[in-house]
Amino acid sequence: MPRSHEKNFQEETTMSIGIIAAGLAVLTGFGAGIGIGIATGHASDAIARQPEASGKINSTLLLGCAMAEGTAIFGFITALIIIFVG
Amino acid sequence: MPRSHEKNFQEETTMSIGIIAAGLAVLTGFGAGIGIGIATGHASDAIARQPEASGKINSTLLLGCAMAEGTAIFGFITALIIIFVG
Amino acid sequence: MPRSHEKNFQEETTMSIGIIAAGLAVLTGFGAGIGIGIATGHASDAIARQPEASGKINSTLLLGCAMAEGTAIFGFITALIIIFVG
Amino acid sequence: MPRSHEKNFQEETTMSIGIIAAGLAVLTGFGAGIGIGIATGHASDAIARQPEASGKINSTLLLGCAMAEGTAIFGFITALIIIFVG
Amino acid sequence: MPRSHEKNFQEETTMSIGIIAAGLAVLTGFGAGIGIGIATGHASDAIARQPEASGKINSTLLLGCAMAEGTAIFGFITALIIIFVG
Repeated sequence: MPRSHEKNFQEETTMSIGIIAAGLAVLTGFGAGIGIGIATGHASDAIARQPEASGKINSTLLLGCAMAEGTAIFGFITALIIIFVG
Repeated sequence: MPRSHEKNFQEETTMSIGIIAAGLAVLTGFGAGIGIGIATGHASDAIARQPEASGKINSTLLLGCAMAEGTAIFGFITALIIIFVG
Repeated sequence: MPRSHEKNFQEETTMSIGIIAAGLAVLTGFGAGIGIGIATGHASDAIARQPEASGKINSTLLLGCAMAEGTAIFGFITALIIIFVG
Repeated sequence: MPRSHEKNFQEETTMSIGIIAAGLAVLTGFGAGIGIGIATGHASDAIARQPEASGKINSTLLLGCAMAEGTAIFGFITALIIIFVG
Repeated sequence: MPRSHEKNFQEETTMSIGIIAAGLAVLTGFGAGIGIGIATGHASDAIARQPEASGKINSTLLLGCAMAEGTAIFGFITALIIIFVG
């Protein structure tokens, strides 16, 4: 029983190190969050200046945010792979 | 059996250290996320000033975002290589 | 056999430490991502001011982004060398 | 033989620590990436103000980017020296 | 012989720590890269305002970039000295 208990501890330690890596990976979304915020803020200013251009501005904002969101998704996929595969 | 168990633990520990590297690598997307956000924000401002130039501005935005996204993809590919090959 | 097993573990540990270096190296793209975003943002503003100069502005943007992307590629190549050669 | 094996491990560990130095060295490109982006952004603004001066502005941009790229190349060369020589 | 072998290991470990110092040293180029980019950006703005002064502006830019590049070269030389001499 002490053996198996020790083994259990080792497995958990190993898994924990990998989980820290998953935590690091998903931090990629930090940058995307800042970037999307900057983009949305400027888009709001822009619509205030030209309310009739709001459709065009919204589509540009959607284009940019989708690409920024993509960088966050890279981090999220990497985190999932680390947890379930690695 | 204790031997093989110990070996198993060592292999898993080794893999875990490599997985932290994958977590670091995918953080490259952090910068790309901020950069794409800055670009999208300025593009929104630009469309507000010249709504009729929105086509040209969107294509320029797409050109820049594709290159910024490329830097995030470098990090993502490196992370995948580290997890599945390294 | 225990000896060879131990050796195997040592080799793998060594490789893992090197892989963290690969994760660090590819982070070079972080700066390029921000830089390309700044460049694209200003290019969008510029096209709004002079839509008829969009061709010249796009070629200047492409010139600058290619050089910034180059710095990310340095990091990516270094990461690949570390993983597959070092 | 156990002795030589141990020595082998020590050599490899030593090399791995050096490779982390290579990962650090190539990060020099981080700054160059941001700098080139700032330069390209201002050059785009400048061309919008004086489209007829785009040739002169592009050559100035190329001059500056070449020097900024140079700082990234210093880091890249140092990383290669550390991997293959050091 | 075990003694000399152990000494060998210690020397190599020492060298590895020194190589991390080389990686740190060359990071000096980080700041130079950003600085050269800012200088080039403003020089582009200046040429747009006074295209006929582009010769003078370029020579000033070259003077400034040469000095900023100098700071990167200090880091590069220090890294080379650490690798090959220290």
